Amino acid sequence: MHTVVEALRAALPPHAVATDPETLERLSHDDAEWADFGLPAAVVFASSVDDVVAAVRVAAAHGVPVVPRGAGTGLSGGANATTGCLVLSLERMTRIIEVDAAERYAVAEAGVLNDDLRRHVAGHGLWYPPDPASQAISTLGGNVATNAGGICCVKYGVTRDYVIGLTVVLADGSVAKLGRTTAKGVTGYDLTGLFVGSEGTLGIVVDVTVKLRPLAGREERAVVGYFRTLTDAGRAVAAVSEAGIVPSALELIDRTCLHAVAQWQGWDLPEEANALLLAKVDEPGARGDELAAAVETLFRHAGGSRVERAADPDEVERLFAARRLAYPALERLGPVLTEDVCVPRGAVPEMLARIEAAARDAGVVIANIAHAGDGNLHPLIIAPEGDDAAKARAKEAFDRIVDDCRALGGTVTGEHGVGLLKLPGAAAELSPTVLRLHRAIKDALDPAGILNPGKAFPNGA
Amino acid sequence: MHTVVEALRAALPPHAVATDPETLERLSHDDAEWADFGLPAAVVFASSVDDVVAAVRVAAAHGVPVVPRGAGTGLSGGANATTGCLVLSLERMTRIIEVDAAERYAVAEAGVLNDDLRRHVAGHGLWYPPDPASQAISTLGGNVATNAGGICCVKYGVTRDYVIGLTVVLADGSVAKLGRTTAKGVTGYDLTGLFVGSEGTLGIVVDVTVKLRPLAGREERAVVGYFRTLTDAGRAVAAVSEAGIVPSALELIDRTCLHAVAQWQGWDLPEEANALLLAKVDEPGARGDELAAAVETLFRHAGGSRVERAADPDEVERLFAARRLAYPALERLGPVLTEDVCVPRGAVPEMLARIEAAARDAGVVIANIAHAGDGNLHPLIIAPEGDDAAKARAKEAFDRIVDDCRALGGTVTGEHGVGLLKLPGAAAELSPTVLRLHRAIKDALDPAGILNPGKAFPNGA
Repeated sequence: MHTVVEALRAALPPHAVATDPETLERLSHDDAEWADFGLPAAVVFASSVDDVVAAVRVAAAHGVPVVPRGAGTGLSGGANATTGCLVLSLERMTRIIEVDAAERYAVAEAGVLNDDLRRHVAGHGLWYPPDPASQAISTLGGNVATNAGGICCVKYGVTRDYVIGLTVVLADGSVAKLGRTTAKGVTGYDLTGLFVGSEGTLGIVVDVTVKLRPLAGREERAVVGYFRTLTDAGRAVAAVSEAGIVPSALELIDRTCLHAVAQWQGWDLPEEANALLLAKVDEPGARGDELAAAVETLFRHAGGSRVERAADPDEVERLFAARRLAYPALERLGPVLTEDVCVPRGAVPEMLARIEAAARDAGVVIANIAHAGDGNLHPLIIAPEGDDAAKARAKEAFDRIVDDCRALGGTVTGEHGVGLLKLPGAAAELSPTVLRLHRAIKDALDPAGILNPGKAFPNGA
Repeated sequence: MHTVVEALRAALPPHAVATDPETLERLSHDDAEWADFGLPAAVVFASSVDDVVAAVRVAAAHGVPVVPRGAGTGLSGGANATTGCLVLSLERMTRIIEVDAAERYAVAEAGVLNDDLRRHVAGHGLWYPPDPASQAISTLGGNVATNAGGICCVKYGVTRDYVIGLTVVLADGSVAKLGRTTAKGVTGYDLTGLFVGSEGTLGIVVDVTVKLRPLAGREERAVVGYFRTLTDAGRAVAAVSEAGIVPSALELIDRTCLHAVAQWQGWDLPEEANALLLAKVDEPGARGDELAAAVETLFRHAGGSRVERAADPDEVERLFAARRLAYPALERLGPVLTEDVCVPRGAVPEMLARIEAAARDAGVVIANIAHAGDGNLHPLIIAPEGDDAAKARAKEAFDRIVDDCRALGGTVTGEHGVGLLKLPGAAAELSPTVLRLHRAIKDALDPAGILNPGKAFPNGA
């Protein structure tokens, strides 16, 4: 292993290569609980495209795998190191290269935080919609690698819907500029789209061109309500959809999650509160009022209680507090394994019931946050620290949830990516023919298999 | 050639294989003027996935290229036959397989016409937005093959933005089901997106799963106005964008086009009318009125004359008459070669000036329809039938427009695809590295090169 480290030091600027145990350990995995990882031989902190090229060339010459990473906030193990690999961190590449307000696009390096881009373009009157929960701490490169979603994507789409160009460093160290900056364009294959969500297995994203929306013209209104049963909450979600209303958020928090928040914050919950629905609409003016009122009525008709509506930004924030506090409330109870499955919208109540059964049978605590309007659920599985038996039972529940999601016509990952945790699920979901296509594309673009091997899709063999 | 025809007849139902000269001639090319084509050895009219599989297997066994086609309304030569090839028509595959109103998606066979899907899903209260000008006569499969755009994509996106799943027959005759039916999903590479716009070079699309929007909640209002100069019209477009207004249509018709329509229809035009801008907004109620009024004001401030606004559907239709009549008006003057380039929105006036210069220098008539809000221009180049010198000059103008679009930071095809006509432009636009990626993917998925060879991207060698 020494040779590759020496070669990296020779090819890269001082301070770009780290081999101290603390750094190797710290950058050896992302935020996926319980996904396997090894210790890398070295970490390269790239500050430029040239650094990335140099690192990939050295890795290619030595046949050493490269595991790229942004901030390491991933939840599927996509950035987990393999033993002796080279971890390539993009977190120092934080330049916002260009904002074109007239053409409504921005170009930013992979290490720029989602929120930093958001704030920067807001200064130009523009808005970058994709809003993963990690937006304050996750990088654009990571968002692209996993095709990150978020809360507003029920109306505004996911990361892929905004990425119109990429610069990527390929497995041989060559640099490809993909995509365009124009509003439309169909010249050649959509390689940009192919690289989005490919988890660093086809190339390393060094900068990203995203299209933007006007910041003006939106006014957020919130409607929240408690429901006695998951079925009632599901009927409310279906009723909003049937009314032709496309909310800019439609989130569900289940009983376990609600109680964790209430206990922590000293809230009192309505009796038999088994779900909280949180909706937003963002049409301005009278139309916004009208839609918010319609959602309120639909919530009440579906059996909602304590239904509240707000237009004032602070009040909107207050109504959504439970959503914001849900994850930290659960983390207080122990390590949280965040599941991510997506089912048909109409199957959300049934899926939640099955998750409840899985939790009961495995004897573990599972709380649920769901992007209900998208059918995208995040069961949060909690097992006490150091309890190996509980951990094993939690893993069983995890697998059962994946199977149940498939049985309901769902997909095993809605927005977190396959990484390592969903390899078995992906193997069940994707046919041998489709797996063969994955392998053919991977082999065509990375014949030596050095780019984040073993991630993103299961080996079909 | 006989062997492959005999094998096709043996493998396919009666009436599926045609070899009569009239059919071979009729299905040997699409609607791209002046793109080369040869005579196929046979045409297969597939009625099922099994037919497509059988045809591809025979072609693969005989090493005969397969050129898939829908209705043949393409404008780049993507469906043009090569001599001795097998043309595989999907036009008999017209089943709408499923509409799920609750989950808002539909599954339809490749031969379903865009308008037929649109009408069918409207019966379920749903809307399929992509609206290429050919919507009444073009198939979904063709729309997917070229990633077709249209008028409303300035607000609602293009075909790719709606396709969430595909069934494709691969080069070896195997069948791959790609994508999902859920609202979100990131399991594996985005192969669905890769196949959209790949012009049948990676596989043959047999059915398409599209997501849909609610039909309700839209009210179209139109604003149109004449402008004395292209610069004035350009300022109006920029002003709409700067105001944060996202119109549901923003079309430009230039002087040549206007005069062709006016002459045909007996209209009188304002003096020095050098451009007509046609906008739509579709927000309902007071908000729609407010936005339409804002667009009207912006048009006037930019120097617009005879600015009119309408909310009544018949009046909206009347105001957009010039757009609807533009193409047929020009076709009366001779064969029309439809260009398709996309530049930054702000460069539309400069691009139109350059097109005018190209027309003048080449001594040909070029009229312009532009999706101005997208920067997507369709110069319509007219050369009198049978005048080879004029045709040569028209081709020069075509090439010059492509070069000019690139010089202004544009892309050589906005929505019609590379086909054959844009191969040289694509060779200029895509770097050798990016072309290498195309070739690698093509070779990985179609090693024998039998699927629509020579289309979609230039040979990088």
